[in-house]
Amino acid sequence: MSIKIGILGYGNLGRGVEQAVLRCDDMELTAVYTRRDPESVKTVSGVKVLSTEALDAGTADIDVLIICGGSATDLPKMTPKYAAMYNVIDSFDTHANIPTHFANVDEASKSAGKIGIISCGWDPGMFSINRLYSESVLPGGKAYTFWGKGVSQGHSDAIRRIDGVKDARQYTVPVDAALEAVRAGKNPELTTREKHTRLCYVVAEEGADKARIENEIKTMPNYFSDYDTTVNFISEEEMQRDHSGLPHGGSVIYSGDSGNGTNKHVIEYKLTLDSNPEFTGSVLTAYARAAYRMNKDDISGAKTVFDIAPALLSPLSGDEIRAHML
Amino acid sequence: MSIKIGILGYGNLGRGVEQAVLRCDDMELTAVYTRRDPESVKTVSGVKVLSTEALDAGTADIDVLIICGGSATDLPKMTPKYAAMYNVIDSFDTHANIPTHFANVDEASKSAGKIGIISCGWDPGMFSINRLYSESVLPGGKAYTFWGKGVSQGHSDAIRRIDGVKDARQYTVPVDAALEAVRAGKNPELTTREKHTRLCYVVAEEGADKARIENEIKTMPNYFSDYDTTVNFISEEEMQRDHSGLPHGGSVIYSGDSGNGTNKHVIEYKLTLDSNPEFTGSVLTAYARAAYRMNKDDISGAKTVFDIAPALLSPLSGDEIRAHML
Repeated sequence: MSIKIGILGYGNLGRGVEQAVLRCDDMELTAVYTRRDPESVKTVSGVKVLSTEALDAGTADIDVLIICGGSATDLPKMTPKYAAMYNVIDSFDTHANIPTHFANVDEASKSAGKIGIISCGWDPGMFSINRLYSESVLPGGKAYTFWGKGVSQGHSDAIRRIDGVKDARQYTVPVDAALEAVRAGKNPELTTREKHTRLCYVVAEEGADKARIENEIKTMPNYFSDYDTTVNFISEEEMQRDHSGLPHGGSVIYSGDSGNGTNKHVIEYKLTLDSNPEFTGSVLTAYARAAYRMNKDDISGAKTVFDIAPALLSPLSGDEIRAHML
Repeated sequence: MSIKIGILGYGNLGRGVEQAVLRCDDMELTAVYTRRDPESVKTVSGVKVLSTEALDAGTADIDVLIICGGSATDLPKMTPKYAAMYNVIDSFDTHANIPTHFANVDEASKSAGKIGIISCGWDPGMFSINRLYSESVLPGGKAYTFWGKGVSQGHSDAIRRIDGVKDARQYTVPVDAALEAVRAGKNPELTTREKHTRLCYVVAEEGADKARIENEIKTMPNYFSDYDTTVNFISEEEMQRDHSGLPHGGSVIYSGDSGNGTNKHVIEYKLTLDSNPEFTGSVLTAYARAAYRMNKDDISGAKTVFDIAPALLSPLSGDEIRAHML
């Protein structure tokens, strides 16, 4: 029996989930749900597109709904709403609001006897697990998280809002010297500026004042002013040719010790991803399998990656994973 | 209330566990159990040493017994025996025999209503988890495991058994070119010889035929004949000065793709360990916490790292780990 998956939202992440579900023999993609006019949305796989009205009645024939919305405004409403009807999973990543989001989803999921997994992807997600495993095994060490080299969509959008900017792409780049010091177990104290730089490619509108644009980027609070930022103006053709992908990645590096403290240990988990949304979609899909299985075992309520045993992610049996992966 | 830990066996691993337990505020090390004369064993921490007779009655006042024996002959007997009385955990690593060991421990643990965690450490253990997470997220990719640079005690012992050898230390060394090809996502097919080399330091007895010793090492089946092996003869002083530690580590590198296959992703989990037994002991200790908690939740039977949710390893509450590590 296949696990029936529905996808809510069909942007980059929704398409990433679609591709991941199609690769899983134990899953069936039943529909993409959208708040737009379903007629206006064409899926890559040809799976049918339905309006969210079809979900709202609570009668959609799906085992797990993978919610692919934004953390700022979509997920805080959507996830609790649908958690009251279906097993759901999201990639909520507004860190400060996780406790509230968790509580809201927990209440809804429990009332429905369903599972609601939140904050799933790679950070939060796979990176979080690695922080937790490392800190649990070597308590009292220091965890460093580096992002990139990769495209930050939020920062790219921030540049696009500047007057005279036609298009923009921002790469977050970890500072090599910082990475190497951390990998060497030196436990450096690093400022924001010392950990990452920001590299921007900008297509300016004809006649725009490039010096002003560059200055507005570099002095933008929160986004750029605390970083060493490089701005490169390029043509539209160069943007399309060289910057159309959404690569990302990064490292969680944990540095701890044991015994009387003389023995040091460094644990690094590193991702190098050609496509951020496709990888995030792949993580969501594996955890959708876990949501289904936990609910079959009569478990309900909000969960995070911390609460889910690794074996629940694999389509293989316990015997198989012990024989081949242990 | 502290988790009461007993350690069975007091070699390098037992001492590593001792150090790790002492660092955990929620644990209390109650005793080291030994098959030797307890009077002959002095613990680093001063914790009391008891004979295994004190365990065999099944009345020892411990919550979890961490069994630090060898996989060849100790653990296949010890772990099922004590699983019938206590929550237990071991680091069994004879791969081919894991199914049998799991079944034996499962039967004993279930009959006692206890938890028996087997094959816990870093490989099997943390490396296994990483193989499973990666394969579950990106099905159909390729997992590579590299070990070292680090001391292999089995290979060191094999050299010591050669006539004319006074002492020996063998380092397993991953081949840089192979590592780099895998990290670049090239998915190479690698022979045993292409993945690792073996580097040996040997103290020969006075007058021993070094050419013969070197030849015996390099042609030894299973241990060395399939590898490019380097043999260095050194003095006893050099051995003590430069090779007294037990460093180890390695990488699990998983290379997969998504979408239509054009987007590649590389996931690497890398350990750099100054002390193999202290790190392994730290992993066992964190999982001992999980064994205790699962059993408190009325779960019994054999488990591996695959069956245990990450949150169970941490002394922190769900609220705390969501707030600080998600």
